[in-house]
Amino acid sequence: MNIAIIGLGKMGGNMARRLARGGAKVYGFDLSAETRSKLAAEEPNFQGFDSVAKLVASLPKPRVVWLMLPAGEISENTFAELKTLLAPGDLVVDGANAMYKDSQRHAAELAEGGFRFVDAGVSGGVWGLANGYTIMLGGEKEAVAQVEPFVKLLAPAPDRGWIHCGPAGSGHYTKMVHNGIEYGMMQAFAEGFALLKAKEDFNLDLGEISEVWRHGSVIRSWLLDLIAGTLAEDTDLAGLAAYVPDSGEGRWTVLESIELGVPAPVITQALFSRFSSRGNDDFAMKLLSMMRNAFGGHAVAKQ
Amino acid sequence: MNIAIIGLGKMGGNMARRLARGGAKVYGFDLSAETRSKLAAEEPNFQGFDSVAKLVASLPKPRVVWLMLPAGEISENTFAELKTLLAPGDLVVDGANAMYKDSQRHAAELAEGGFRFVDAGVSGGVWGLANGYTIMLGGEKEAVAQVEPFVKLLAPAPDRGWIHCGPAGSGHYTKMVHNGIEYGMMQAFAEGFALLKAKEDFNLDLGEISEVWRHGSVIRSWLLDLIAGTLAEDTDLAGLAAYVPDSGEGRWTVLESIELGVPAPVITQALFSRFSSRGNDDFAMKLLSMMRNAFGGHAVAKQ
Amino acid sequence: MNIAIIGLGKMGGNMARRLARGGAKVYGFDLSAETRSKLAAEEPNFQGFDSVAKLVASLPKPRVVWLMLPAGEISENTFAELKTLLAPGDLVVDGANAMYKDSQRHAAELAEGGFRFVDAGVSGGVWGLANGYTIMLGGEKEAVAQVEPFVKLLAPAPDRGWIHCGPAGSGHYTKMVHNGIEYGMMQAFAEGFALLKAKEDFNLDLGEISEVWRHGSVIRSWLLDLIAGTLAEDTDLAGLAAYVPDSGEGRWTVLESIELGVPAPVITQALFSRFSSRGNDDFAMKLLSMMRNAFGGHAVAKQ
Amino acid sequence: MNIAIIGLGKMGGNMARRLARGGAKVYGFDLSAETRSKLAAEEPNFQGFDSVAKLVASLPKPRVVWLMLPAGEISENTFAELKTLLAPGDLVVDGANAMYKDSQRHAAELAEGGFRFVDAGVSGGVWGLANGYTIMLGGEKEAVAQVEPFVKLLAPAPDRGWIHCGPAGSGHYTKMVHNGIEYGMMQAFAEGFALLKAKEDFNLDLGEISEVWRHGSVIRSWLLDLIAGTLAEDTDLAGLAAYVPDSGEGRWTVLESIELGVPAPVITQALFSRFSSRGNDDFAMKLLSMMRNAFGGHAVAKQ
Repeated sequence: MNIAIIGLGKMGGNMARRLARGGAKVYGFDLSAETRSKLAAEEPNFQGFDSVAKLVASLPKPRVVWLMLPAGEISENTFAELKTLLAPGDLVVDGANAMYKDSQRHAAELAEGGFRFVDAGVSGGVWGLANGYTIMLGGEKEAVAQVEPFVKLLAPAPDRGWIHCGPAGSGHYTKMVHNGIEYGMMQAFAEGFALLKAKEDFNLDLGEISEVWRHGSVIRSWLLDLIAGTLAEDTDLAGLAAYVPDSGEGRWTVLESIELGVPAPVITQALFSRFSSRGNDDFAMKLLSMMRNAFGGHAVAKQ
Repeated sequence: MNIAIIGLGKMGGNMARRLARGGAKVYGFDLSAETRSKLAAEEPNFQGFDSVAKLVASLPKPRVVWLMLPAGEISENTFAELKTLLAPGDLVVDGANAMYKDSQRHAAELAEGGFRFVDAGVSGGVWGLANGYTIMLGGEKEAVAQVEPFVKLLAPAPDRGWIHCGPAGSGHYTKMVHNGIEYGMMQAFAEGFALLKAKEDFNLDLGEISEVWRHGSVIRSWLLDLIAGTLAEDTDLAGLAAYVPDSGEGRWTVLESIELGVPAPVITQALFSRFSSRGNDDFAMKLLSMMRNAFGGHAVAKQ
Repeated sequence: MNIAIIGLGKMGGNMARRLARGGAKVYGFDLSAETRSKLAAEEPNFQGFDSVAKLVASLPKPRVVWLMLPAGEISENTFAELKTLLAPGDLVVDGANAMYKDSQRHAAELAEGGFRFVDAGVSGGVWGLANGYTIMLGGEKEAVAQVEPFVKLLAPAPDRGWIHCGPAGSGHYTKMVHNGIEYGMMQAFAEGFALLKAKEDFNLDLGEISEVWRHGSVIRSWLLDLIAGTLAEDTDLAGLAAYVPDSGEGRWTVLESIELGVPAPVITQALFSRFSSRGNDDFAMKLLSMMRNAFGGHAVAKQ
Repeated sequence: MNIAIIGLGKMGGNMARRLARGGAKVYGFDLSAETRSKLAAEEPNFQGFDSVAKLVASLPKPRVVWLMLPAGEISENTFAELKTLLAPGDLVVDGANAMYKDSQRHAAELAEGGFRFVDAGVSGGVWGLANGYTIMLGGEKEAVAQVEPFVKLLAPAPDRGWIHCGPAGSGHYTKMVHNGIEYGMMQAFAEGFALLKAKEDFNLDLGEISEVWRHGSVIRSWLLDLIAGTLAEDTDLAGLAAYVPDSGEGRWTVLESIELGVPAPVITQALFSRFSSRGNDDFAMKLLSMMRNAFGGHAVAKQ
């Protein structure tokens, strides 16, 4: 059982570890020599390479090359390079977050060279190493069968937590929707705890409340487990900035909602709240302030 | 250990059962004789009464009377009646969903007569009988101590799943926020599964996907467990109407968001989606249709 | 034609001016002596008083007393004082922004003393002095007839721009909805101009675009006139803070939407955007940041 | 002054009329012979052609060909055909609603053949024939100068209501944002009037209120003029279905909001309300109903 992992960051590195510990021989590439040597020192089943070409040359055929790269230029360049290195029958998995239409395109482009493709939506975060990852696969039946042994090692259990969703693109589509739901759930929790916090005369202990909600309530969930774990130690979050990035999947979900004509008000508002947290509605708010002054003579706050 | 439960519906009835099975002697009142006799037949520790007055007369002092009545007239009338029946030192628990400001008022009104009051937010639904209920209590320390033995029977475990939140009203406030979060989470799931369904060319199996998400994914939760359980048997939900009631708690959460000036876009949109599902935005939509025709000559759909 | 105006701020002062210039004799009260004397110097038909009691004593019966006071304590105290000063048949108009349910209560309370009441929603801002005010009246037919001569002076024209909406409360209700619409329109413009601004590679001239839209476009409106007037001189609004107050009417509209079960997503989001502009979602955003770190190991921005 | 108009529907036909009446010689093509002959009968300055090729052959150089075609296949095919028919120096205007990125692409593709391109966002609806159209132009300075004489005829006045926004694409971008604002404004009005309607105990006359708001109020606008015009005759809109199409521009605005990371909650909710009006959230609502039943035993409405 041989597999290549290209991109050994937070997700890719831990997936390489879990595969290696499960018995697969893992051929890894990452730009960082330190990352490669750290993994090699930890995992006897891991071998690092300082170029994709060398890695591919060493990997026995038919090859399975699993990409864990950021969407965009780096990912596209690697797809292009692999097409010059792989042999017919080799298979590329894109396990990173990617727009599903790009995965459909990658499937078609690879097929022209006789290569196989599977898109794999992977959820689990930093906890996946210990607990396993949820994996959503898109691609042809034979291609999925080829990656199945590895997926069974990555999943929480061999027969649980992974699925062949449908044709190429459907794995990333399903993962995209998963993350869209995640945006909505996170925002729902954030709004709720903010309402607890703001009711100052009750002086509520948010840590204890979140812990209690974990037992028997309708909203018990893994996200709540995480919240309770943090709030138990710090209910003020005073050190954190009210600044929230977003990472593509939320945006893609909204784009799809628009394309399909299916309303997604909660997922969209969750995304917009993050935009606003970064000051991206400042100009709109200045315009409101200006209008209020223009029609009502209301005093405006100056910068 | 003696306790009265007034209102033996879906929630109250099962709470009476769980208390009786836990060893409490339960004095129950419900308007339905059938409900009372059914419970009495099932639970040796349960005794039914056909009037609140008789129940109170039989219940040893200091009394604990736990109300599970719909907010509004029925609940208010029962509070009024109890004030004529109870003795100083007796305690009333409002365990139903109630607006927290009403609970603050009830606490003040009962205190005038020398009675105690605890508001108890209870979550758990029809599964609470087996799994226990999450319970959020508001009231004075001594009052909460008086109901604590019963709360420990209702909770998933004696030392878990219940909390004394703060002063009177804070139990219902916390439960209200819990339900607000629930509205947001439910809508997030609903939007996500609707996006899976609408992507027809992928022909996704919603039942299998929901099952897979239960293992290792970021959105695993009890609501997802319930969704997976149903979708496994029926992915089309063809028999259901797209018509969703709302029950007070969601509205109260939004009112509080407005009062505190703390934005709750996701919880609010979840509520508005339910309003719309019941046709409550029909007139607004007719107006849009009329405007489009008026400025653009667009054809309008007629009824 | 005699009328009292109590509260001579931005709105009340200009309304007093417009009435005085129209030929009414205006009896004015304001806490500020400077405001009173300034008006008296400007308008021969205006007479200032340093107490409500003196004003009422001088005003010929049947009296019309028009309040332009902030909702809440000041307004409530003045209602209470007037009940001790007025004679049966006298009439109180509340022309300030007030929650319509308060106006229904005021009508009932005044009726007990034999006093009349009209609620008057007034729109027009600082431009009303020159252009006239839109006025929405609630109350009994005879009461409205009693204030009609003054309303005709305040309106843009005697037979235009004012309306008797219905019973007491309906004037303020209609004004509340007017302002709710205003919130939505303002936010729509703000979002649109923000999108023009953010498309930096087009380097669009927002002032010129807003001016062009004033002629022939579907969105031409008085708000757009005001926007164009300001943007022509300052397209960056660099001196303004992205901080927007809200003043009650928007909140009341959303509360009513919840009470009636009629969705108002746009008006509500417009309100929430203002809440967010004032940092009121900071804690929610910190929670999101914390969750992202907890499940994904994402770096968090620190304060 | 010669110009071709391709596509003589509601917008294109009236623009042809306005140009012809302004003194331009208009060469028109439409698939419908009836449309062509009707225009020819009305306007001496109009000449109809039954093929694009014949039209181009007759039109003196340098040609100005103004397209008023639906975005998508028909428009793309016509662009392709024109590239085979035009001569270097000829100019194509896309005056229909088009995604601005498509206009950027058209500009580049036409430039390869030595052709010029201007994108023209046109607003005004069925009232444009009488009142003139607001026109937003994108393209190179020389190209815009070539269409300027025609734009001056179409605008409300030669020096008013039209603008050269910036490079190719910027005209359609500005028009897209205009329509996004329009979506938000329309929804704000729709929500407000729905709240007036729903307050049944006030029995408000929506037609009279809308008329009054036209005079002096903050929300006076052309849309309100149209609303008042219709509601004066029909305040119930009983014959209309609560079913609202959307036509591309709203969607594009939201997509741009996502791409730029600038929140547009109001414009987006306006769009989602239209989606919902067409039943596109039915499956989501069925899921909510199912969840409520699963956790709370709530009765569900059946179809």
